Amino acid sequence: MDVPKNQIVNSFSNDEKFIHQGKHLLLELYKCDYEKLNDESFLRCSLNRAAKLANATVLNLISNKFDPQGVTAIALLAESHISIHTWPESNYSAVDIFTCGQNMVPELASQYLIKALRAKEHYLRVVDRNPPVEVPCQTRTVV
Amino acid sequence: MDVPKNQIVNSFSNDEKFIHQGKHLLLELYKCDYEKLNDESFLRCSLNRAAKLANATVLNLISNKFDPQGVTAIALLAESHISIHTWPESNYSAVDIFTCGQNMVPELASQYLIKALRAKEHYLRVVDRNPPVEVPCQTRTVV
Repeated sequence: MDVPKNQIVNSFSNDEKFIHQGKHLLLELYKCDYEKLNDESFLRCSLNRAAKLANATVLNLISNKFDPQGVTAIALLAESHISIHTWPESNYSAVDIFTCGQNMVPELASQYLIKALRAKEHYLRVVDRNPPVEVPCQTRTVV
Repeated sequence: MDVPKNQIVNSFSNDEKFIHQGKHLLLELYKCDYEKLNDESFLRCSLNRAAKLANATVLNLISNKFDPQGVTAIALLAESHISIHTWPESNYSAVDIFTCGQNMVPELASQYLIKALRAKEHYLRVVDRNPPVEVPCQTRTVV
């Protein structure tokens, strides 16, 4: 598998046109533990734990188990969302941590998930999302 | 607002290290219709419609209305997910269309959402996700 080992890339950090209030972490996890990638309950708990560590508020969490293997779990946050899609047969998982607001620390969620799924390699890209200047981008209240 | 008008950027197309089976569209929508961005029911319908146009299968759909305005809606797909986060006060929305598999055409979902939300400007980045070579990355069966 020809992938970079544990790299972090800030893909859009040199773009000066935007106000970087939204941050989106695109995380590929390689050589993970098969059983953990196929455990829907474990993955739901892991997303919850990752969100709390990152100082996020989970408003809803859904998941789906696939046949013959694989899980998707998505947490709807007050600060945007965290999602995980797993392919246990390849020991691979794709994670998204999209945050808006100053209080959340998405890197903590990323670090936690790398360890929780026992990824021996990972590839993290940090993408700045581009709201217009006037977007306050703060945590909002649930109706 | 100093943002590119209706740009498409394939940010990782020159990276030859990976097999590009996963495609992630990061779409920023600017100058959208305020009412549509604040209409939870409309946004749920729009995600459903976008998914169907893209030949995706919606397995679950959740949403949340914020106070004083703003909506998040997320569709869990057999092919990964589509999410939308809106900030009506800034006429802005951040959309993610993450697909895995050969049958889905995420660009059709993107085109539909641009029109549905009446975005006068948009900024689309196409990011290849990086599964290891052996990931089949096909639509899987729901358990």
